[in-house]
Amino acid sequence: MIESPINEIDIVKAKTSKIEKVDFNNLAFGKTFTDHMFVCDFEDGKWQTPKIIPYQAMTIEPSARVFHYGQAVFEGMKAYKDENDRVFLFRPEDNHRRINKSAARMAIPEFPKDYFFKGLSELLNLDKDWIKPGIGNSLYLRPFVIATEPAISAAPSETYRFMIICSPAKAYYKGKVRVLFAEKFSRSADGGVGFAKAAGNYGAQFYPTSLAQKKGFQQIIWTDASTHEYLEEAGTMNIFFRIGNTLITAPNNDRILDGITRKSVIQLAKDLGIECEVRRVSVKEIRAAAQDGSLKEIFGAGTAAVISPISAFEHAGDVFEIDDIEESYASLFKQGILNIQHNEAEDLHGWRFEIK
Amino acid sequence: MIESPINEIDIVKAKTSKIEKVDFNNLAFGKTFTDHMFVCDFEDGKWQTPKIIPYQAMTIEPSARVFHYGQAVFEGMKAYKDENDRVFLFRPEDNHRRINKSAARMAIPEFPKDYFFKGLSELLNLDKDWIKPGIGNSLYLRPFVIATEPAISAAPSETYRFMIICSPAKAYYKGKVRVLFAEKFSRSADGGVGFAKAAGNYGAQFYPTSLAQKKGFQQIIWTDASTHEYLEEAGTMNIFFRIGNTLITAPNNDRILDGITRKSVIQLAKDLGIECEVRRVSVKEIRAAAQDGSLKEIFGAGTAAVISPISAFEHAGDVFEIDDIEESYASLFKQGILNIQHNEAEDLHGWRFEIK
Repeated sequence: MIESPINEIDIVKAKTSKIEKVDFNNLAFGKTFTDHMFVCDFEDGKWQTPKIIPYQAMTIEPSARVFHYGQAVFEGMKAYKDENDRVFLFRPEDNHRRINKSAARMAIPEFPKDYFFKGLSELLNLDKDWIKPGIGNSLYLRPFVIATEPAISAAPSETYRFMIICSPAKAYYKGKVRVLFAEKFSRSADGGVGFAKAAGNYGAQFYPTSLAQKKGFQQIIWTDASTHEYLEEAGTMNIFFRIGNTLITAPNNDRILDGITRKSVIQLAKDLGIECEVRRVSVKEIRAAAQDGSLKEIFGAGTAAVISPISAFEHAGDVFEIDDIEESYASLFKQGILNIQHNEAEDLHGWRFEIK
Repeated sequence: MIESPINEIDIVKAKTSKIEKVDFNNLAFGKTFTDHMFVCDFEDGKWQTPKIIPYQAMTIEPSARVFHYGQAVFEGMKAYKDENDRVFLFRPEDNHRRINKSAARMAIPEFPKDYFFKGLSELLNLDKDWIKPGIGNSLYLRPFVIATEPAISAAPSETYRFMIICSPAKAYYKGKVRVLFAEKFSRSADGGVGFAKAAGNYGAQFYPTSLAQKKGFQQIIWTDASTHEYLEEAGTMNIFFRIGNTLITAPNNDRILDGITRKSVIQLAKDLGIECEVRRVSVKEIRAAAQDGSLKEIFGAGTAAVISPISAFEHAGDVFEIDDIEESYASLFKQGILNIQHNEAEDLHGWRFEIK
């Protein structure tokens, strides 16, 4: 974490707002952007004065390293509004810490904490009308960093651009999700960049996921690349299994993202007296639990989807359906997290961060 | 490979050339670009009419998927000129085949062969003064594809841009290279995208490589992610070991790029009656050969570097120096390939491709 004295942010306001043209009841995820964006360039060895400008296309050299070497990292965050128009973020310090962890692994300079928070604050104050109150509504925030140096030797960039763009969001996945356990393709390896929100980790999943989708499964649960025997994460979500009344999720490692929703679920489980085991989970164990009826739930946890219940999994040609249950952990955690995010429940752990 | 009838290429010529400002004796790799570039957009489910325009910065949305999900692939090629100003490429059909193989793995639509070749031909005719004759001089060509759709859901793009930019080049690595055998970090996994020239594969190597460089080693030879016992490739080069008079290189697989220089070396070895084994190579074997004196050479093979002799390797804290030898295989193959590329040797295998 780099601390540095912040300069003022240069702000250029949009002359008119696009908000009237947006149908907030019919939002496709990640396709509509607010009136402003945050931009900060790294040049001459340091982050320059940040600015907020109207959301717009940008000019970049075709030789910019990001296009050739995928030197890019990002975060996913959300802003929420309560019924009194107060605006909140959820555990934003963790996003800042994580983007810098991702950046370090991708040889990108860390971004100063005060720039990050001042940028978010100014941006959300300008675009706060885009945050609609009510559970399920949010403003998805996408901080990201790209390598901009116009040079195509295989080496880290000398210049970067840090940006935050904002997109109004409804729930990410509608309804339940059917998943496939990976048997051939893999997402990451020990010693690799799987723990980082590095851009290339995501693009690499699109093809295997498209094959899964053709078979009727929306997502893949990735397994370890060496043996495909242990379940890891879903690429955009961490994964929880409920066997009996016990929750199980894989430990963080080189290959698995340290998800903020994941760790919130683990804490809420503790608060609620639900046993949660953080350990390796084998495909064999989950198949056996599905067969003997002790597998009660599988759900994904991530910022975009919050909690995403999984209704079936496929492995080795066998499809296992997971019946709906009343009072599911998935709905319990989803409601619990949403209530904290929207200032409708007590914030025992200091997760809410108000934007003033 | 998609065949499709080519439309004419729209060509806008640069009003003036930048070539007079370039010092061809002092070129940093990949920082100087020629007067023109090739651009072709994928929209409405198909590649549109290609164009060649003056080399310039471009406009792109900050939400373009390439910035967020690393959906991008590239190729590296070179154009050469002989003493009679004839211009040649080296095995360009393999580059076309490989960019489409990379594209398929990254869920990017394949690029038509006739567009690729017509584009290269028109571009090189326009910018042929940038190709200097003489062994060691070349014009490095960088075809690449980026995902341009302005949408940040984690899904493949609906729109893409294919481009070719050109950069005059001298030899990529100057002098000999010291390498480190990877023991902790890894480059790719079975079932992953290591075989593809996917952008993210390269950015992921920058941090481990920077650590190696601090220890005095310019490059890393990657080992298998599961055990770190087998030597794979160097990230921008394939790797050959010479034990006694036998050459050994790792087989292609999910993790190792199918290098064009690599397979040219294998063929030239056959032509010259040099035994070449394509098989797994263990760290243990190379350490033992270095200790008993039978390890005569290690060299990298890749388009940018052609052949890059390695003078030392480090593993588990031990540094093994490799003495210079006369009549090295490295210099033999380098000269052999350069002579074919520059039309100074017979082209037994039809590798030269003349641009007319």
